[in-house]
Parts: sequence; structure tokens; C-alpha cells
Amino acid sequence: MGDAGSPEDRLIAHYFKPLAKHPAAFGLQDDAAAITPPAGHDLVLKTDGLIAGVHFFPDDPADDVGRKALRVNLSDLAAKGATPLGFLLAIALPKGFSENWLAAFARGLGEDADRYQCPLLGGDTDSTPGPISISISAFGTLPQGTMPRRSGARVGDHVFVTGTIGDAALGLRLRQDAGAGKAWKLDAAMSDYLVGRYRVPQPRVAMAEIVRNHASAAMDVSDGLAGDLTKLCGVSGVSAVIDLVSIPLSGAARGLVLRGVVGLETLIAGGDDYEILCTIAEDRVEAFSQAAERAGVGVSSIGTVVAGSGFPKFIDGDGREIALERLSYSHF
Amino acid sequence: MGDAGSPEDRLIAHYFKPLAKHPAAFGLQDDAAAITPPAGHDLVLKTDGLIAGVHFFPDDPADDVGRKALRVNLSDLAAKGATPLGFLLAIALPKGFSENWLAAFARGLGEDADRYQCPLLGGDTDSTPGPISISISAFGTLPQGTMPRRSGARVGDHVFVTGTIGDAALGLRLRQDAGAGKAWKLDAAMSDYLVGRYRVPQPRVAMAEIVRNHASAAMDVSDGLAGDLTKLCGVSGVSAVIDLVSIPLSGAARGLVLRGVVGLETLIAGGDDYEILCTIAEDRVEAFSQAAERAGVGVSSIGTVVAGSGFPKFIDGDGREIALERLSYSHF
Repeated sequence: MGDAGSPEDRLIAHYFKPLAKHPAAFGLQDDAAAITPPAGHDLVLKTDGLIAGVHFFPDDPADDVGRKALRVNLSDLAAKGATPLGFLLAIALPKGFSENWLAAFARGLGEDADRYQCPLLGGDTDSTPGPISISISAFGTLPQGTMPRRSGARVGDHVFVTGTIGDAALGLRLRQDAGAGKAWKLDAAMSDYLVGRYRVPQPRVAMAEIVRNHASAAMDVSDGLAGDLTKLCGVSGVSAVIDLVSIPLSGAARGLVLRGVVGLETLIAGGDDYEILCTIAEDRVEAFSQAAERAGVGVSSIGTVVAGSGFPKFIDGDGREIALERLSYSHF
Repeated sequence: MGDAGSPEDRLIAHYFKPLAKHPAAFGLQDDAAAITPPAGHDLVLKTDGLIAGVHFFPDDPADDVGRKALRVNLSDLAAKGATPLGFLLAIALPKGFSENWLAAFARGLGEDADRYQCPLLGGDTDSTPGPISISISAFGTLPQGTMPRRSGARVGDHVFVTGTIGDAALGLRLRQDAGAGKAWKLDAAMSDYLVGRYRVPQPRVAMAEIVRNHASAAMDVSDGLAGDLTKLCGVSGVSAVIDLVSIPLSGAARGLVLRGVVGLETLIAGGDDYEILCTIAEDRVEAFSQAAERAGVGVSSIGTVVAGSGFPKFIDGDGREIALERLSYSHF
């Protein structure tokens, strides 16, 4: 037994050790990682997980699952203005799991760890009688005391979101109902685009410093824009008025809304956007917009922070308030 | 919806927010925690999880499950010489889970978070079609560059372990087989003691600084003393000679061995000890032993590091080498 190898040890050595390139990970050959945080910086800590059949489809490509597992956490770090430092991976595998699946998962995860400079620092591999379950804890750093909070929105601030909203909710519907693409008269490219937005989020890592420098409040949109904005307003002690026609939609989503196939409500109450929602004081709006443009990330002003009790108003193109039945996505 | 409450949000606010007392957790009302690590210190990072039916019994007391979930991680931090800083909790709950279970889990977890000064900093609560799954990532700190590694054992060092070995393996057997206690002629107090050692580990937090100051190599014993020592030797490029009669046993375990009910092999190849295994240079042995005594933690010298290929020798009372069939516990 010179290789000191339990089955767990073999899996870790074969699939995950190649991802543990950072010296702080000790090649996964120690009990824990040890890393020196940059002086004068805070550590930003986040954990978010994926469970097969809940957060992804068991037949989703495994490399995409690996990407999504890291990206949902990178999205939080970006919304909190933090630069990635590294992550811990806990993965539970059912008996008889496919090693091909694990190999592809580790490849996708490793490619994104490189891409976003967020190395694997340690992990835990277990067997489970349940479905594949992945839990990632990600760490980032930022200059001490500079993390944008959810609670900083002030009356008069502009409400911004990055990217486009609702694509992932549509992608999820397409994955749930194989006939939906045809019923919606979507061409294959549009359909693939929407499913891709569900499967592989685009964490707005390039926005981290910009959000940190300019936002009065920020969070990532992962449970639906309407519900997440409600949370931000609640913690900030304000409300907001949102102009529904200003909410940025992809061409695919816009077409479906214009043809009356789906309502805007589906898009703003659906989950998995992984965009950044933030509030920007009036005198920062121009600098914020220009910085985002330089970073190559689209940002849209969708409304205004107002005094009130927390529940935002959504106004349609004719100035009428629209009542939303469901604000956010819940797995329970 | 002034309380912005999805079912997840309600669970988090009700059961976990009371544990998030540290200001860095922002009362779990933000996307992430932000904490300032002490200057001149490294951050030690570890993740370890528990899955119902794998790492604990579904009918184990939920408060004990909460304690164990944190303690298995605190054990790693202690073995690595680190002082606890805080932890992230990811928990997946089956549909229809008992809120009484969750309340007791959170109570046990919270009491230990207070006891060990390791506050909850953030978390993720999900629904799962599988069993209850808990993943904790724990963070500790220590003066920069001082983490004792697995790789530092040198020829001539003494091999030490804390506490007693094998109790948890016996406790697990007692839990697996309701008739074992009677067959082994154990009284109720002995049986409860052994089951307790399985259910609620005693992380050797008081040893952290002592290990850091004196050990040439250290790790926690969680997969069986024999297998874990083999790993430590392997990474250090050495071997060891272990004196089986020096391995510290509790009264309950010693009685079972003396009566021939279980073999020593069961005890040193079983998991869940959560004791510290470390190597101490000859000239540090006295200082290490005295410091451990002052800290109130029993430590035992069980052998010596020798030159060799990594696989330790186990010698019985007559000086004969004993071959072990199974070195460690594996869930796969």
C-alpha cells in the first residue's frame, strides 16, 4: 500500500490534484490549505451548491456542471466587489457514478478555475445514497472595509443591472419541456442560446472593482430580479420604481415577449440570471457607466430608489403599475 | 411580502440567523461575509461534510449531528495548529424534513460555535431529493508560515497521538448492530461512552498552539490511525515503527481487547477518532508532553519515525510484526 490509497484518495489524486496548482493547496496532500491573504484586505466568503435534479439536470454536460458550480460563487464575489482568491470543493457521488462524468466535471471546473484565477485549495469527496451534490465555498479579497452591501441603497439612486434578464428562466423551461422550443417557434440557435444561459452563467468578474468603487448597494441576481430587488430594498429600508420596458432582454427573450409567448413576469421572477443588481448615486452614474463600457459589460438603468416600505413598484410602458404574483424562484 | 420571504429565507432567518452573531456575517442578510484576518497571519481552510446514512445515522440526535458537523472540521484546524475564525454551512434538506430536527441541529451547532468561538459566517440552504447533507467549510488562523504539515516527519522523531484510539469504531459497531452491546457483555455506561465517542468527537482545540510550536508533522486521525499514519509517512518520505501495546485505549476498548471480543486491528483501522497524530523531535518531547499536560489533554508516545518506504510496522508486545489487512475506513 505504498500509494496509501483509499478509493477517495485515488479519485482526489486523479481528478482534483491537477486543479490544485496553487502552493497553498499543498497538492491536496495535507489536511488543510494555508494561504496568506493580502495585507490590508478583507476576506469575502461565500458558499453555494448544486444538486443533481434540483440545480442541474442529471444529463447536463458534466463539464458545464463543473463550470456552473464555480461560476455561481464567482458571481457572488463579483457582486460583492471581491477578487477571487480560491475555493474549496465538497462533492458527494452516488455509488456506481461514472468516472467519465467526474473527469468531464473536473475538466470544466479546472478550466474555469484557470480562466477566473480562482484555484482549488482543498476539498472533500464522499459517497452518497442521494444524487450528485456539489458544494463550493469561494473566497475573495478586497481592500479592507470596501465590500458593497445590500443595505446601502439611498433614495434617488439609480437601479442598474448587468447583461440581460430572464434568459436562464427561459432556458430552464426549454430543458423541462422538450416541446417548448417548437411551441415557441424558436430556431435552434435561439434555443441553444437560452439553454446555455441556464447551464453556464457568465459571472461578471470584470465588474468587481467597478461595483466596489461606484455602487451604494449590490447583490447578484440569482433568485429572480423582482425578488432579489425586494430583498435589497428591504435591507436598505427603501423601495424602488422599476420601468419594465427598461429591463434588458436578449433578442431571444424579447422576441418571445413581443409575440406574447411568455410574460415579462416569467423573466423577472425566474432564477439563475447571475447578473449584478446595484444602485448607483446620481453623481456616480456617468463614471459607473463609462467604467462598465470599458470593461465590456453591458449595464442598464432600470429604475430609481424611492422612499417606502421595501416592496418595489413595476411600471409598464403606459405608466401603470403591474402586480406580480410570484417574485422569486424557490426550490422548497 | 414585506418580509421578502421565500421558504429558504424563512428557514435561514429562523434557525441560522441566531448563530450568525459575528459582525462579519451581516446577520446572513447579505450575499457574502467579509472578515478582516489578523495581520501577519495565514488563513487555514478546510471542508468536511456529513451525509445521513453515511456519516451519521438518520435517528442520531440532531443536536449531536450539528455538533459533529462542526467538530470534524475543528479537529482538522487543531491538528494544523490553527485558531478557529469561523465557518460556512451548506445544508441540503429533503422535502418534508422535520423542523424539529432542524431546530435541534441548529441548537447543537450554535452551542458548539459558541463553545469553540467559531461563529457561523454564511451559508446555503437547499432542497434535495436525497438524504440530509451537511457541508461545513471552516477557517482558522495562525502566524504566517507556521502550519505544521504532514510532510515534516524526520527519522528519530517520536510518534504521538492524543486521547484514545478506536472508541468511535466500536461505537459505530454498536450503532450498526443493536445486539452487539449484549454480545460484548458491555454495561450501559460503557456502551453509551463508546457510542458517544462516535457521535460527538472531542476536537483537540486546546492542542493547536502546542502542535504548532512543537510538532514536526501533524494531522488529524479521522480515517483510522494505521491508514492516516501511512499517509503521513508517505508524504514525509519516511516509515515508522509503532508499538501496539503503547496505543492508548479507553477502559471500555481495553476490556474488549483483553477479553478477545475485538482485535486491535479493528481499533487502529477504524475511522472517526478525531484525535491528533503528530511527530515530535527527540529534544522537544519533554516540552511537548508538559504543555499537553498543562492543557489537560492526554498524549501518548506510540512509536518512532524510521527510514523507509512509507508503510509503518506494527510490533506486538513480544516484538513481532503484525500484518494489518485493512488500514483505513472507506465509504466507497
